[in-house]
Amino acid sequence: MELTKQLAEAVLSADPLQDHRAVEMARHGLLDAAAAALAAKEDEGIQKLMALVEQEGGEAQIPVIGQGKKVSRQSAAMLNGYLIHALDYDDVHSDVRGHPSAVIIPALLSQLSDGKGFGDRFLAAYITGVEVMARLGESIGKAHYERGWHNTGTLGAIAAVCAIGYLKKVSQEELMKAIGFAGAQSAGMRKQFGSDMKPLQAGLAARTAVWSMDLACSGFGGSESILDGTLGFFSLYGDEERAESRLLDGYGTTWRIVSPGLWFKVYPFCSAAHHAADAILYLMKEHPFSPEQVKQVDVLFPPGGDAALIERTPSTGEEGRFSVEYVIALAAFGQTLALDAFTKKPISSQIRTWMKRVKRGYDQTIEPHPYAVPKGRFTIVKITLSDGTTISKRVDIPRGAPGHALSKEDIMQKLNSVTDASYAKQILQAVEDGNDSSYKQMLA
Amino acid sequence: MELTKQLAEAVLSADPLQDHRAVEMARHGLLDAAAAALAAKEDEGIQKLMALVEQEGGEAQIPVIGQGKKVSRQSAAMLNGYLIHALDYDDVHSDVRGHPSAVIIPALLSQLSDGKGFGDRFLAAYITGVEVMARLGESIGKAHYERGWHNTGTLGAIAAVCAIGYLKKVSQEELMKAIGFAGAQSAGMRKQFGSDMKPLQAGLAARTAVWSMDLACSGFGGSESILDGTLGFFSLYGDEERAESRLLDGYGTTWRIVSPGLWFKVYPFCSAAHHAADAILYLMKEHPFSPEQVKQVDVLFPPGGDAALIERTPSTGEEGRFSVEYVIALAAFGQTLALDAFTKKPISSQIRTWMKRVKRGYDQTIEPHPYAVPKGRFTIVKITLSDGTTISKRVDIPRGAPGHALSKEDIMQKLNSVTDASYAKQILQAVEDGNDSSYKQMLA
Repeated sequence: MELTKQLAEAVLSADPLQDHRAVEMARHGLLDAAAAALAAKEDEGIQKLMALVEQEGGEAQIPVIGQGKKVSRQSAAMLNGYLIHALDYDDVHSDVRGHPSAVIIPALLSQLSDGKGFGDRFLAAYITGVEVMARLGESIGKAHYERGWHNTGTLGAIAAVCAIGYLKKVSQEELMKAIGFAGAQSAGMRKQFGSDMKPLQAGLAARTAVWSMDLACSGFGGSESILDGTLGFFSLYGDEERAESRLLDGYGTTWRIVSPGLWFKVYPFCSAAHHAADAILYLMKEHPFSPEQVKQVDVLFPPGGDAALIERTPSTGEEGRFSVEYVIALAAFGQTLALDAFTKKPISSQIRTWMKRVKRGYDQTIEPHPYAVPKGRFTIVKITLSDGTTISKRVDIPRGAPGHALSKEDIMQKLNSVTDASYAKQILQAVEDGNDSSYKQMLA
Repeated sequence: MELTKQLAEAVLSADPLQDHRAVEMARHGLLDAAAAALAAKEDEGIQKLMALVEQEGGEAQIPVIGQGKKVSRQSAAMLNGYLIHALDYDDVHSDVRGHPSAVIIPALLSQLSDGKGFGDRFLAAYITGVEVMARLGESIGKAHYERGWHNTGTLGAIAAVCAIGYLKKVSQEELMKAIGFAGAQSAGMRKQFGSDMKPLQAGLAARTAVWSMDLACSGFGGSESILDGTLGFFSLYGDEERAESRLLDGYGTTWRIVSPGLWFKVYPFCSAAHHAADAILYLMKEHPFSPEQVKQVDVLFPPGGDAALIERTPSTGEEGRFSVEYVIALAAFGQTLALDAFTKKPISSQIRTWMKRVKRGYDQTIEPHPYAVPKGRFTIVKITLSDGTTISKRVDIPRGAPGHALSKEDIMQKLNSVTDASYAKQILQAVEDGNDSSYKQMLA
């Protein structure tokens, strides 16, 4: 099979604008990405990155979200990708097992420099990017993530280059080569989770996509079949046989941005802890208790369901983004699960001590819900109080996930929580206007 | 074990300048890299890359070899890496199974912007980079390359970041983080062999190294243990257990730049075909024959010994860099195995037809020579003439390889063949002077 060629063909010939639900979801995605990035506006990491980019220099062409500055196209892709993913507050997609919009949107924004009129094609390109990234995720198989790859990084560059290819209506040969350049630069390690480098891996994938398409359109030589064969991308990073049956099956008949759909985050931490957060908040409301009363909290996952939650004893709020122990403890102490609990500030010793009451467990005999998000996932939080009482709650689909989705009003509420009302309204207007200068300015 | 920490410690505390052979070899390496890059001065790919870099913009800080232009530090690392490796005419190292200087030298040249006085420390940093890259190659194991990774790309960024760390005397913590940033961006696929992207993968590794050290020195957050554990670099790209016993064993007691040593190329094509080239040239001299007389040429490798020679029926000279069939045919037709036979020009139909007489074979029962380069390699060329006569030649150590090394005069001859005598002399002077402005200007 010629997967690279067939992928390029499929991407360039489909028409995502026919599906109004997909278009509507793409608008939600833009609003949510703006909210995630603006929430990170004051992040320390972005200041360091901006200084490094300034030192390197470059043409001021594309705005960096919320920073009031323009930088070169490649640098903008990197910085905007970083910003959207900085707080882990951006959308995730269960097929990707990662964050599609943090890569695809910045890569597309960096194409808005040359004054071409893309209009609604911008939304169609975004839908395309999510589609390809979801299909890559399904094709690469579970083992890819489990071995230590960061799917957002490793799958993002190829997906975003397909989005750019659709946007710019490049030739099939150019797209095949661009996929090749992106594939051969794909990287990102889960070992970086919990550090500034995690969100930067999203930004780097976006930069790679912009650069790869530039290379391809310049006529620079490269493989036109990077996905194929025993030395190809799928063999190297995953499993080629699996990809052959999944990458292109039914491309364009339904859109993954709708089903299984983007998952917009209610909480600013790793999505693998959202089920547990919903569960503990439910229990606190239905069966109020104080933290002192708690003898033990058992958090039960399917095997591997907590793989992304790499911190069991975090010392800062930032590390706590990847700790179900910290999330449970915050909630138990009645603290809001909001941005200021997940900064570089040290976690109080009171909370750190209490966190030891939280134990993780795994049960492979429990049947996952057929519509669970992500597929096969659940979390059960069982609290044993000091008087021996136990209370427990199971969550299969967390709030914000497909099947329990946020409305446009919910997303606007998220946006309003991170910026002033007039700016939030301006962004909404820009997304609904849907023309190039509005897209570009919406994030300036 | 804490491999990341131990590697940073070893790199920062060793003193390569104590070994005069290592220093001399480093000087040879600089001369040879200059020759390889200047041979590619008119390459089409570099023109395309320069145009893209110009479009992106940046501070003009570091010269691009032979181009009479300066670009930003990161872009210079990328472009100089591309140039050195563009024609596959640069050094290789058998422990690396790739091209150390094409990554390490450009990464170091990009540090010469700030007017600090490095002096001989520049040579020591280069020796350090080769050392780390060789040890990474030995640690990562054969399977890494065989699966499809391009070692020059995947190992180069970490090695070059160690070289920069030594040069700049960064703190151990900074180096540990820089190794982390480089490791998490490591990429490069053999699938790109035979295209412009192969040498660019060397340049991209150099760029990643420059960028990773900048990130680390800015205080940007990242893992300080990227090499370690089940999610670490060695587990993900290779085999952690192997690395634990090999990465640091005896660091600093001998230097890999001397033993097994750099291999400077006599021919401008993939080193895996050099044994066969020596063999056919020997046979033509000792037992002259015409191409028409040849019935069949059998080229015998140990199993896997021709893995890099991915082209069996090349259609251009550029593809022919990875074809033992093309190399044998050129020699049989009495053509010089020089640069102009390995360009984008189509191969003549006469040669293409004749190439079919060349057959590859594998024999695992043949004992490799104890000092074979690379370890375990040999090539036997057996020619059957139309009258039934057979002549054959076995080569274990090709000319230019350690054990059959080029002298400084040989390397100067290579340099003289690609640039005018006065410029060659100026480069030699610069390398022997060994101060920052001479290193910087030598490649301008």
